[in-house]
Amino acid sequence: MGALGFDNPVFATYAVAAAIMVLKIMGQGWMTVWRMTRARAGFASPEDLRPGPINPDPRPGQLEPDEAVERSRRMHRNDLENIPAFLACGLIFVAAGPPLWLAKVLMYGFVVARLAHTLAYATARSHETRAAFYTVGSLAVIVMALYTLAAVLA
Amino acid sequence: MGALGFDNPVFATYAVAAAIMVLKIMGQGWMTVWRMTRARAGFASPEDLRPGPINPDPRPGQLEPDEAVERSRRMHRNDLENIPAFLACGLIFVAAGPPLWLAKVLMYGFVVARLAHTLAYATARSHETRAAFYTVGSLAVIVMALYTLAAVLA
Amino acid sequence: MGALGFDNPVFATYAVAAAIMVLKIMGQGWMTVWRMTRARAGFASPEDLRPGPINPDPRPGQLEPDEAVERSRRMHRNDLENIPAFLACGLIFVAAGPPLWLAKVLMYGFVVARLAHTLAYATARSHETRAAFYTVGSLAVIVMALYTLAAVLA
Repeated sequence: MGALGFDNPVFATYAVAAAIMVLKIMGQGWMTVWRMTRARAGFASPEDLRPGPINPDPRPGQLEPDEAVERSRRMHRNDLENIPAFLACGLIFVAAGPPLWLAKVLMYGFVVARLAHTLAYATARSHETRAAFYTVGSLAVIVMALYTLAAVLA
Repeated sequence: MGALGFDNPVFATYAVAAAIMVLKIMGQGWMTVWRMTRARAGFASPEDLRPGPINPDPRPGQLEPDEAVERSRRMHRNDLENIPAFLACGLIFVAAGPPLWLAKVLMYGFVVARLAHTLAYATARSHETRAAFYTVGSLAVIVMALYTLAAVLA
Repeated sequence: MGALGFDNPVFATYAVAAAIMVLKIMGQGWMTVWRMTRARAGFASPEDLRPGPINPDPRPGQLEPDEAVERSRRMHRNDLENIPAFLACGLIFVAAGPPLWLAKVLMYGFVVARLAHTLAYATARSHETRAAFYTVGSLAVIVMALYTLAAVLA
């Protein structure tokens, strides 16, 4: 079975993929901040209408949804629906001791699919494009979960 | 203390519970896709109104909330509020070296409670039914977290 | 490199921080429950309007957003955007074998920043206060991810 440490190249693969995906999630938060700051709109809470460095000159409507900000929030939500499950699943998958090539295909496949999904969403590509990248990422996680279940129950 | 590997039956219990919960999260995404496809409504983004294989014949109102789709999104959100915390907490709980029976009760209890919550939510059972299953799952995670804290600080 | 077990003080630090953050997430769910119960409003689903122990005397408008309930949901969402990434990132960071002082600064720093963010959000402090605590927590996770990447690729 696979050891959870950097001596195991499957774990090292996981750590690289996981670190990139963590940076993706955190970066999406900063994209929302950037879009809120630029639009000076899409704020979340009533107190955000008080004047201050973030909002020096409040105006009505700043709590209304702003499409650029909402798009970033939808991207974030989509990340949260996929990446935490990947992060946990990847770890038990490492413990299940898969071959390195399979781990690389599934883990880096997930990372590439999520980054491509982000790019497609940010640039408003067609629903089909977004759905295709979503599907690849989702299937990678599902395969890892099934592989792990099979390994434990075998 | 408990080793993080399949030789440890507590870890194997965790891996089974975690894999099922990961499949639950990913499956909820597909339930939303299925309901959006069937209702041809509840789409998330303006570009989803462009004609294409997913939406061959766009009509106004497809970006409005659709109750069947929103229900699936609420179920998903409820999963995200509970399952990632379980996945992380389960792992440190394994490391704390609990007795196998306790790990089985808490981990499989969480899994059963979440699946029952899903069923109750999907079929619009009473708020009380949903709340009862939510409570069982939430308490299982809280007990695991407190057990782990006590084990480290002891 | 760092072992994933309580013999490793860096792992013990992670386990304490992770357990507290798991309790934070679960507690936020209960704060929402408490605020819904007190306001008897902000319910999520049509079936919540049926009479029962949670809602003995239904009235119209209970499905409308209620600011106290929505505030708790926004706090929860902010947790979900930050804590699961921390939980996964912390683990690979432990495996990367950082010095104990650095792990304590980053992990306990994250915990303190999130708890302060919660307090600032619950009491409607200025956007700047909330943003400052968000920034500290986010940077802690980003540094852990970059440290781990550097350790693997070195």
